[in-house]
Amino acid sequence: MPTVTFLPRYHKIDVELGCTVLDAAQRAGLNINVVCGGQGKCGKCIVFIQRGKIIFDHQKYAQFFTQDELAQGGCLACTTTIESDIQVLVPDTTLIQEQKILVEGQKTEIEFLPSVKKYYVELNLPTLTDPTPDLSRLLWMIQKNGGPVAEKIYAPLEVLRDIPAILRNSDWKVTGTIALVPGVYRLVDLQKNDTSKRLYGASVDLGTTTVVVYLWDLVNGKVVGVSSNYNRQISCGEDILARVNFARKNGLTKLQVLAAESINLALTTASDTAGIDREDIYEVVVAGNTVMTHILLGIDPAYMISEPYVPVVRRALSVAASRIGITCNSNGGLFVFPAVSDFIGGDVIADILTCGMVDREEISLLIDIGTNFEVVLGNKEWMFSCAGAAGPALEGGEVLFGMRANPGAIERIAINPNTFNTTYSTINNTKPRGICGSGLIDLLAELLRTCVIDRTGRINLGIKNKRIRQGKYFPEVVVTWAKESEIGKDIVITENDIKNLIMSKASIHAACITLMKAADITRHQISKIYFAGAFGNYLNKKNATTIGLIPEIPIEQIENIGNGAVAGANIALINRRKRKALDNIALKIAYIELNAEPTFMDEYTSSSFLPHTDLSLFPNVQRMLDECRLQRE
Amino acid sequence: MPTVTFLPRYHKIDVELGCTVLDAAQRAGLNINVVCGGQGKCGKCIVFIQRGKIIFDHQKYAQFFTQDELAQGGCLACTTTIESDIQVLVPDTTLIQEQKILVEGQKTEIEFLPSVKKYYVELNLPTLTDPTPDLSRLLWMIQKNGGPVAEKIYAPLEVLRDIPAILRNSDWKVTGTIALVPGVYRLVDLQKNDTSKRLYGASVDLGTTTVVVYLWDLVNGKVVGVSSNYNRQISCGEDILARVNFARKNGLTKLQVLAAESINLALTTASDTAGIDREDIYEVVVAGNTVMTHILLGIDPAYMISEPYVPVVRRALSVAASRIGITCNSNGGLFVFPAVSDFIGGDVIADILTCGMVDREEISLLIDIGTNFEVVLGNKEWMFSCAGAAGPALEGGEVLFGMRANPGAIERIAINPNTFNTTYSTINNTKPRGICGSGLIDLLAELLRTCVIDRTGRINLGIKNKRIRQGKYFPEVVVTWAKESEIGKDIVITENDIKNLIMSKASIHAACITLMKAADITRHQISKIYFAGAFGNYLNKKNATTIGLIPEIPIEQIENIGNGAVAGANIALINRRKRKALDNIALKIAYIELNAEPTFMDEYTSSSFLPHTDLSLFPNVQRMLDECRLQRE
Repeated sequence: MPTVTFLPRYHKIDVELGCTVLDAAQRAGLNINVVCGGQGKCGKCIVFIQRGKIIFDHQKYAQFFTQDELAQGGCLACTTTIESDIQVLVPDTTLIQEQKILVEGQKTEIEFLPSVKKYYVELNLPTLTDPTPDLSRLLWMIQKNGGPVAEKIYAPLEVLRDIPAILRNSDWKVTGTIALVPGVYRLVDLQKNDTSKRLYGASVDLGTTTVVVYLWDLVNGKVVGVSSNYNRQISCGEDILARVNFARKNGLTKLQVLAAESINLALTTASDTAGIDREDIYEVVVAGNTVMTHILLGIDPAYMISEPYVPVVRRALSVAASRIGITCNSNGGLFVFPAVSDFIGGDVIADILTCGMVDREEISLLIDIGTNFEVVLGNKEWMFSCAGAAGPALEGGEVLFGMRANPGAIERIAINPNTFNTTYSTINNTKPRGICGSGLIDLLAELLRTCVIDRTGRINLGIKNKRIRQGKYFPEVVVTWAKESEIGKDIVITENDIKNLIMSKASIHAACITLMKAADITRHQISKIYFAGAFGNYLNKKNATTIGLIPEIPIEQIENIGNGAVAGANIALINRRKRKALDNIALKIAYIELNAEPTFMDEYTSSSFLPHTDLSLFPNVQRMLDECRLQRE
Repeated sequence: MPTVTFLPRYHKIDVELGCTVLDAAQRAGLNINVVCGGQGKCGKCIVFIQRGKIIFDHQKYAQFFTQDELAQGGCLACTTTIESDIQVLVPDTTLIQEQKILVEGQKTEIEFLPSVKKYYVELNLPTLTDPTPDLSRLLWMIQKNGGPVAEKIYAPLEVLRDIPAILRNSDWKVTGTIALVPGVYRLVDLQKNDTSKRLYGASVDLGTTTVVVYLWDLVNGKVVGVSSNYNRQISCGEDILARVNFARKNGLTKLQVLAAESINLALTTASDTAGIDREDIYEVVVAGNTVMTHILLGIDPAYMISEPYVPVVRRALSVAASRIGITCNSNGGLFVFPAVSDFIGGDVIADILTCGMVDREEISLLIDIGTNFEVVLGNKEWMFSCAGAAGPALEGGEVLFGMRANPGAIERIAINPNTFNTTYSTINNTKPRGICGSGLIDLLAELLRTCVIDRTGRINLGIKNKRIRQGKYFPEVVVTWAKESEIGKDIVITENDIKNLIMSKASIHAACITLMKAADITRHQISKIYFAGAFGNYLNKKNATTIGLIPEIPIEQIENIGNGAVAGANIALINRRKRKALDNIALKIAYIELNAEPTFMDEYTSSSFLPHTDLSLFPNVQRMLDECRLQRE
């Protein structure tokens, strides 16, 4: 068996001949960046083979390497097979960095009414004159201590079986945990002595790409830990479609296990950091998109990805956490948010809960941009929703120097209208390695404002500036010069990149207009636009309006709610009444299938301009553009 | 390994050296009679070793054999160890016979409201304009077909996971099974096509000795099969005490498995006979004593058999049948009757349901005589209960020629007051082999009526009749002569037997009086006496009163309800409202611990006469005895 030594940290692992370097690295515990799921498409997993025999097609993947990199033995880990003992250098840039994940959520005041509670009780010993059965003795004392009516508390068999020994081994001093979900009170478990202070719950945003976990102390209502990591399903495919196709070919089991493992990993990190025993976590609340929650529950998602796009279930579900491999208290419960449809999942319901639009008379527009986008329009009376694929451009895909919001990504840009020099900031303030979504939107707006591009997105090569040039295939604009960049190359944006970005923003805008037309309202009636998702949180609201990503409304009415999914999960975790209302919210929301809606295609065409064919819909943008053009002339 | 060959049917089995013949027989599938649980105490497991080496202490167990039997190689299977290949003849009398088990139950008109129902539905195919999730599509159609409100039906994960494939593989024509327990509707399972006519349920009397199963067609409300067999736990001990002690030493698992297997065996027999697939049995309702139901559920019964006699749980329980090893539909449910206390179990609650005393103003007295006895006194407003060990005499134990109600047992006897010759009938009308409980009560009453015994139970040896004689240890009365009997011996009753019988009947009578005093009522206020249990059903009511087993009330007010346990289980199976009321019945019943009640010991002493020290409590018996004495004089 060949031995693979990974530098710089000297991880060693024995693998079979023909194994890929990526597999070896994953088994050695190294988190290699594989955006494309290991298909040799993204070029993010560059490693340097320093010794030993490997097979790698340098010609096929030449585009991903500089001459220097090739000279140093650069290969893509995912398509390099191991033919002998080898030594591999894994550069830091190839390892997955702590992504800038939004975990704060909306700061709202939520009443603390957790749906699980512990009761420490000291029981009277049974006697000949009081031979009350163990269970009644216990539940009556819990009732006496403020718990629910004893007769209403259901005791599952696994707890019942433990009761007699626990009571007698603890001198009849015990702590009972009661689930307080109205109507279905349940004795979750029984422990010796007083453990009433050890009661925790977790809320989870189960995203296609990332998993975010908040750990709450359910006695005092405080967050005690936060953790996030990549969804380990990424190794089975980058996006939802790839995952479902993987499940079709290989069955659901692996994806289900990986989903559970991803949550477990974040739970472990959060609880270890907080110094908490995972057995003391009694509840896990999960918000995720419909495909992710189907997979987590082991329910086939296959029928959601092709016509007529049908989920198996959309109601909220409560299951035993152990049933699906979540390791918390062995009798702990798992609550999964309800969904509206295949593409309006529990994450969107959580967003709605977080922004509070469901409680207000005024009409709000909620936009969640992630791997896909979802839009919800409505108020406490009614809601319309739709969803679509924005294309990968806003997440850094299909854009030459696009990247995710990792360290080194340019997240803010301004362009000097005279020199066309750029001012920018990067995540972690390191040298730039690429441009992430919020940077790309800034860039598009700035290029438009400075007339470097016209409203169709064409680059004006007539401008005499060294930053504006004809590239190998397309006209391009230099954002940073090679010498300033981490990657030793000019970071540019091409006319093709701009075309892809416009297609993305056009979909989202067209979706907004489609819902507004369905509800027969204009942009003047929208009191709030909420951006949800990590992307939205770093967005420059003005620039988003400038390029026509969203309908134009006063900037101060646009709000970023951040990771609304985990924020909504938090709310459902700490307030049982809010949780109970979720199914009703989900039932209230009408879903509009964009593919079946002719309005959408019309609006998409009209939206494929910056900001739109009809400038009267964007009066402020028109004013700004007019001013800029005037200055330039 | 020695080979054991069992005749007459040539069962062969290889066993290890030193194994007992009983173990070998059980492994070979032979149902050997081991009333004492294999301790060499009952002498019922006689086998004849025809060839090979064994070890058996003939001297120690001589009392159990005739000379003939010894000459033929008679041994007790339970204490004979195998030392070589052997050949063993197992006489029919040693095999467990089909016991005369009461299965009819009370014939009452119960409204047919089963708590599980099937709905055949044909669904509309999902389309782009109707992408309703699978679950909602299914449940809405079930609702439209008369089922419960869709939103109120809980769908467990195991069914959810099956839904998408079943719908699509059956052309959207499916049968859903819904549990209709009020407040907790549940989608039990989903099947392809129309299976709505295949819906069965079983009610079970889980007794210490026997298991009785009724199989019901839950579509048309008819009984389709009945089966009974011994509780296979008998191999771990004859009575409850022995079983609990076995569990203490060896853990609960074996007893739990045997309990489930005993039910499974009866279910299999009943469903095979009826030609029913066990997968079509969706519900099993079990009534049993508190120790039996604890064991079946895998809950430790240890704390019930010593002071202060505390059960773990007394409420009704619903669990997944598969959880405890009952093989019916894989999503089928099991309902266990509630209990009042350690000794007033679900079987007694079932008796109460069966006799209807809980619905009436008038006061009733219910007596269930089995391995133990239970007595309940009360009406719709209040109930008192108590329980005790009657001793084994009424079941044929501690009586020289006592036996269970098996073929050959004398079940009715009359004595000619002049000749002292007996007239009797046996079960199955075969030659007599012994006397069962109802026969013993007849015998006691007849001996008293004919003045062969006095009110203390002493045999009057002064009577000159060859049937009345001094036996080896005690005076005795010959019931049948050896030549008439199957066993080739005189069947007699000894003064010692009579003493044991009086002790048994005194306990039961004293228990009745203890409850009456607690409720402050006299025998005149009792409108009904109900006998429950197989024993009660064959009882001569007049003779039972004559010997003072029960308080004297007019004979026509005494009723046998037979196997009230299975009859009550039947009621709970076919009527969900009656089932729901059970916990309330159980909570209404006060339990009086006889051991803690001084009245009981006083009454026991007074009841240790035939019928009682105080004859004014038995005016009719007194009149009869006076007449008889007069005739004799």
